[in-house]
Amino acid sequence: MVGVDGPGSRHVEVHEAVLGWNERQAERNRGFFRAKGWLILNVLSAPGAGKTTLIQQSIGRLGDRAKVAVVVGDLATDHDARRLRQAAVSVVQITTGTICHLDADMVARAVGKLSLEEGGVLVIENVGNLVCPAAFDLGEDLRVAVLSVTEGEDKPLKYPPLFTGVDAVVISKVDMSVAAGFDRVKCYEALRRVAPRARVFEVSAKTGEGMDVWCEYLLERRRAHGVSL
Amino acid sequence: MVGVDGPGSRHVEVHEAVLGWNERQAERNRGFFRAKGWLILNVLSAPGAGKTTLIQQSIGRLGDRAKVAVVVGDLATDHDARRLRQAAVSVVQITTGTICHLDADMVARAVGKLSLEEGGVLVIENVGNLVCPAAFDLGEDLRVAVLSVTEGEDKPLKYPPLFTGVDAVVISKVDMSVAAGFDRVKCYEALRRVAPRARVFEVSAKTGEGMDVWCEYLLERRRAHGVSL
Repeated sequence: MVGVDGPGSRHVEVHEAVLGWNERQAERNRGFFRAKGWLILNVLSAPGAGKTTLIQQSIGRLGDRAKVAVVVGDLATDHDARRLRQAAVSVVQITTGTICHLDADMVARAVGKLSLEEGGVLVIENVGNLVCPAAFDLGEDLRVAVLSVTEGEDKPLKYPPLFTGVDAVVISKVDMSVAAGFDRVKCYEALRRVAPRARVFEVSAKTGEGMDVWCEYLLERRRAHGVSL
Repeated sequence: MVGVDGPGSRHVEVHEAVLGWNERQAERNRGFFRAKGWLILNVLSAPGAGKTTLIQQSIGRLGDRAKVAVVVGDLATDHDARRLRQAAVSVVQITTGTICHLDADMVARAVGKLSLEEGGVLVIENVGNLVCPAAFDLGEDLRVAVLSVTEGEDKPLKYPPLFTGVDAVVISKVDMSVAAGFDRVKCYEALRRVAPRARVFEVSAKTGEGMDVWCEYLLERRRAHGVSL
């Protein structure tokens, strides 16, 4: 997941210890988030698939129907946080340095800096990476993968650990489908094999196509989500 | 790079041990490759930036001027290897399972299965990931980052560990620049800050734009590269 095997490496044991510890912190986060009545999204994708633009546009469309706060992870820069600050109630940037994913503890520490009222939606924008974030539960209710039409339809088959665990897949940048030669049938076939239970949305955050359906899904999931353990 | 810090984690020590071990194997690879007179490329990018298509088209254009073999890393599937097998002399697929990068030992084991004559070019297509592969020297002569115009111009600033160490950057899919709203000036500015010494190429493997300049660069680098330690 996050290491290599070879002489001198204690990869397997350490990895299990790290994950065991992360899972406990993730469950504590989950309890905390439920007590607050927040719906939590963990948004995953390759670099440049359009996570930040999707989140920006979702916040605008949700408007007063759901207040949104964002925790955003990047190796370096606060570009995404600056873009999101214009739209969201509250934004916290986590800069991971060289670490390829967020973990439950990073999220727990960021939450203290957030202001979000009950019934809000907390969106965690993970580091752009189709491998490492898959292994780290953050305590989220919905795990969402964003897959742009310019990346190639076979990505779900090539990165199964990430796609297998998601609740929803947002196919992004659909305004570029023709220019990119996107094969919709092939993409759905790949998703059906790897993530058969995931809800699939097709959106263009640029033109607005599909954004209402996606936002309705978030509102419906928040409604289904009472304040209880 | 490839782990998390937290109670129960021995991330730092293990990471150093793994990297120390990888660096020794990478130097052994480098010596072996030099003895063979091969030019070695380590090609890095986000998922879907177009590494495989770039390599395919490069092989076609190089033709008899340089024989190319490929080692290709993916978490799952042999899609890329199958695509490349039609063009390259010899292709070896490494399936990493859940590991987010190739390492020097994986490459060493794959090399035994390759057939490539002296003066050839070995292209290592790494796992699509802008974080983890940066830390792992494979014994290459040229580290090449592929950055597609659809990913956003700020990626070099957001993933500095990867871009800082590269010898060349291939800006790919330039046929989609307009549709993607690609800001060329901003991209070069980001590259100048993070990778000031890297040679930058703009190509479209689809239309052929820029491919000759890129292939000439490879031939020139191979000529500069004698069989010596």
